[in-house]
Amino acid sequence: MTTQYFEHPLNEKTRIYLRVEALLHQLDVSSRFSDDLQHLNFFRGLFDLLEIFEQIQLKSELAKDIEKQRLTYRTWLNVDGVDQDMLRSILQEVDQAHSELMSAERFGQSLKEDRFLSAIRQRFNLPGGSCCFDLPALHHWLHLPCEHKQQDARNWLESLSSLSNALKLWLRLTRETGHFQTRVAHNAFFQSDAEEANILRLNIPMHYSVYPMISGHKNRFAIKFIEFQNGQAYTGDVEFKLAVCC
Amino acid sequence: MTTQYFEHPLNEKTRIYLRVEALLHQLDVSSRFSDDLQHLNFFRGLFDLLEIFEQIQLKSELAKDIEKQRLTYRTWLNVDGVDQDMLRSILQEVDQAHSELMSAERFGQSLKEDRFLSAIRQRFNLPGGSCCFDLPALHHWLHLPCEHKQQDARNWLESLSSLSNALKLWLRLTRETGHFQTRVAHNAFFQSDAEEANILRLNIPMHYSVYPMISGHKNRFAIKFIEFQNGQAYTGDVEFKLAVCC
Repeated sequence: MTTQYFEHPLNEKTRIYLRVEALLHQLDVSSRFSDDLQHLNFFRGLFDLLEIFEQIQLKSELAKDIEKQRLTYRTWLNVDGVDQDMLRSILQEVDQAHSELMSAERFGQSLKEDRFLSAIRQRFNLPGGSCCFDLPALHHWLHLPCEHKQQDARNWLESLSSLSNALKLWLRLTRETGHFQTRVAHNAFFQSDAEEANILRLNIPMHYSVYPMISGHKNRFAIKFIEFQNGQAYTGDVEFKLAVCC
Repeated sequence: MTTQYFEHPLNEKTRIYLRVEALLHQLDVSSRFSDDLQHLNFFRGLFDLLEIFEQIQLKSELAKDIEKQRLTYRTWLNVDGVDQDMLRSILQEVDQAHSELMSAERFGQSLKEDRFLSAIRQRFNLPGGSCCFDLPALHHWLHLPCEHKQQDARNWLESLSSLSNALKLWLRLTRETGHFQTRVAHNAFFQSDAEEANILRLNIPMHYSVYPMISGHKNRFAIKFIEFQNGQAYTGDVEFKLAVCC
């Protein structure tokens, strides 16, 4: 039985984190430049990231959150029943991610100063604006050997590695706090309390042909299921799996 | 020796035609959904097209241009030395493209009325806005079998077939009017007259590491070559191939 995996952030900051994670994945996949359109997803992903960096102080937010995780894990040191080897290994990862983050440049600084990237960023969002006559420098770059382009991409992405490591760690540790449990949404509606939760994770069997509409915040949330075919509220019961991650 | 192929439109309408051609190619390639990012290029391409359709009366512009080509080709009927079989075959293609175009709906009409497409179009341009929680209906669709998604894409693109056929024909016939000739840009500068030209086509050897900056209009144009590495004007001579297409 195929299943739809779904994640929903319960606060604005986590919403940004998940978007940034998706964009970093987009950059990773598209930086192979293995077909003649992947560069579109690569540069779009890069410029979307720069726009997010301009809107919020991502670095300090993330450093605060990593610090919060460090404090939580430290309270478990020398507590009976807690695997101390694993705990120390996690604390080491957290320490390293935090110190890399603190010594990193402002996110996107070197990308914004890159002449080539700045030149193409201006026109990239025009509808159909990545034609050769709109972006002659990009067009020249596209004719370079694939290894050259991949190396450029690695150099650009290198400046985002501390962000990528810290964000992946924070999201991994956050996701690990939740445990999937079977739930039933009677009449396609489910609500529950949450305690300072950041992310809801859902596994929904595809045979219902529904998708979730979720509202809520860190302490309370509600899930309604909508029929994909007509966009109307579903009326039957839906059995799904839910993990609440703090 | 590798070569950079470059095209430059000499008027605003042809600029739009070339952008639309690039977007239709983007839709064609990405509608295979063969990796987990191609849908981004597919929907972005589709929504870029809708934006262009909202800005200009593409259907009537294209019908007028196809009609102009028909009149030109008709003047060659029964002219000695003109291959009459080939001419009749072209005229048949032109007639068919024109009549398909005239009987087509307003470009993009059925796409704009599609509930699913309209719902996702609104959020698609948010930076990183194609996450599951931003677009739950799209996320559900992405979990459907690949054949299902390819069939949906075929249905959506079907409504653009008359545009695609007419545009491809007009561009093919326009490109065929030009013949590549070797030119030298002394001190990286070249200018020339053109007679009611629509498109300049350039083949530039990659070893110069330059890209062209072109200004001009249908009757006169100038080409400057710029160094890719530093964005400054190139100072040497550049031997390249040029075709002026009317």
